[in-house]
Amino acid sequence: MSLPSHVRLVEVGPRDGLQNEALPIAVADKVRLVDALSDAGLGYIEVGSFVSPKWVPQMAGSAEVFAQIRRKPGVTYGALAPNLRGFEDALAAGVKEVAVFAAASEAFSQRNINCSISESLERFAPIMSAARQHGISVRGYVSCVLGCPYEGNVAPEQVAAVARELYAMGCHEVSLGDTIGTGTAGDTRRLFEVVGAQVPREKLAGHFHDTYGQAIANIYASLLEGIQVFDSSIAGLGGCPYAKGASGNVASEDVVYLLEGLGIHTGIDLSRLIDAGRQISQVLGRASGSRVAKVRDAS
Amino acid sequence: MSLPSHVRLVEVGPRDGLQNEALPIAVADKVRLVDALSDAGLGYIEVGSFVSPKWVPQMAGSAEVFAQIRRKPGVTYGALAPNLRGFEDALAAGVKEVAVFAAASEAFSQRNINCSISESLERFAPIMSAARQHGISVRGYVSCVLGCPYEGNVAPEQVAAVARELYAMGCHEVSLGDTIGTGTAGDTRRLFEVVGAQVPREKLAGHFHDTYGQAIANIYASLLEGIQVFDSSIAGLGGCPYAKGASGNVASEDVVYLLEGLGIHTGIDLSRLIDAGRQISQVLGRASGSRVAKVRDAS
Repeated sequence: MSLPSHVRLVEVGPRDGLQNEALPIAVADKVRLVDALSDAGLGYIEVGSFVSPKWVPQMAGSAEVFAQIRRKPGVTYGALAPNLRGFEDALAAGVKEVAVFAAASEAFSQRNINCSISESLERFAPIMSAARQHGISVRGYVSCVLGCPYEGNVAPEQVAAVARELYAMGCHEVSLGDTIGTGTAGDTRRLFEVVGAQVPREKLAGHFHDTYGQAIANIYASLLEGIQVFDSSIAGLGGCPYAKGASGNVASEDVVYLLEGLGIHTGIDLSRLIDAGRQISQVLGRASGSRVAKVRDAS
Repeated sequence: MSLPSHVRLVEVGPRDGLQNEALPIAVADKVRLVDALSDAGLGYIEVGSFVSPKWVPQMAGSAEVFAQIRRKPGVTYGALAPNLRGFEDALAAGVKEVAVFAAASEAFSQRNINCSISESLERFAPIMSAARQHGISVRGYVSCVLGCPYEGNVAPEQVAAVARELYAMGCHEVSLGDTIGTGTAGDTRRLFEVVGAQVPREKLAGHFHDTYGQAIANIYASLLEGIQVFDSSIAGLGGCPYAKGASGNVASEDVVYLLEGLGIHTGIDLSRLIDAGRQISQVLGRASGSRVAKVRDAS
């Protein structure tokens, strides 16, 4: 058993998390959250998404959020840019890293982004080229890597094909998302074995959902496969869009707890992280989705 | 990575779970729960505890429960017997396997069972000898194996000493309990490495709490160490006695989901298990502590 000595967390709560909360929250609350997260030591925060507020009202005001956050040196503040228009808005807002979002399942791609997988990759081409021109780095997401809400099983080879394509197009990192949280530790290891043969493992990230309680075990399995970057969401923000009331994104606090226990360096201060989660949970008026936060608050 | 092909679950919900719920529940509800669990395919159910109802009112009526359950051939129906008096009551109730409970931490032993670790082991001697005489098998518990609410860290060597003693006294299996759920996957592997050098691994069981969200990862880590028996609690019954509102025993449904995903045989029908959990959660008037049950009910 050899585990990485350092792990980098990509905090997706302000974007992937809040996007899936029922109500949009105020720009000021988002700014406070992002600043609290950078203060806790997170090195990468996905701040918002440059999409039409008509389609995703929760992400309205992303430019204002970028204008108001206290940018800490060394911290990457990313944003989702689903198309060239979004990329240009992100650029105007001073974003230095954008993310594009593909799926490993045809049915999910059609229903979620309204085009086939290969069409979605074609649409990214102008973003990649504009990004290169402006010195902006691009992160790629692949969703449904361990199962699809419409298709069921998804072959790791299919994931590998999409991940390889994103990497070849110039994504500096490709995050593999278990969007519905159905995967278990063995599937996770096999996934990284197969994808890792196509894309260097240090260029891959794991994005796990705790819907079936498996996220922490899947992260441990990924670590055993040499994966060193994980997406997580403060207080487990976001829930599961496919099953109301169920868990979604793994809580950052619980991941940091695991990594600390394994003696893996993250640079994150768990107490401050828990404070950041407490704050946003109060804004949303709901209990934290982090078990670590719950027990710390209960003790 | 080589995982066991079969795993045996020890269902502790009716005893360890219900003992830590706020209110005692009716004998009829306990009987219905135990029967639902055996119908779901569980091969071992810890049904109750033979202790004074003055100290543990939740366990009152254990003899009646034993008298009324539908005993399914091949299923072990166990009970906790903290002393000889309890053992005799268990014997009278037709119990064929009893469990004794020790701690790996002196402070916990003193506060929880009111004597030192070595005194507790001495008290088990007459139980072991009476059990041998009556052909009753005995299971041993060691609590606080990855941390103590009073002492903090607990050395694996200390756990190994207590486990070895219980095994030497005649316990056919020794269950190692992370009573406060603070352990992570690396600690778990080290624990089984150290204890496994003193007691054969096939005689050890893992008993994990999900208080910090680590239980499923710890079970996966244990499987990688060759452990093949795990305790779990239907619907996560019991919560955490040391932090009100936090999670306690890992939910049986979530463990079975993991094992199914890993292709490990358990003989348990997950749907029927979820039904059993739904039933008892309704009796208790609270949400299930199982993430799998929650998402199945939400979808």
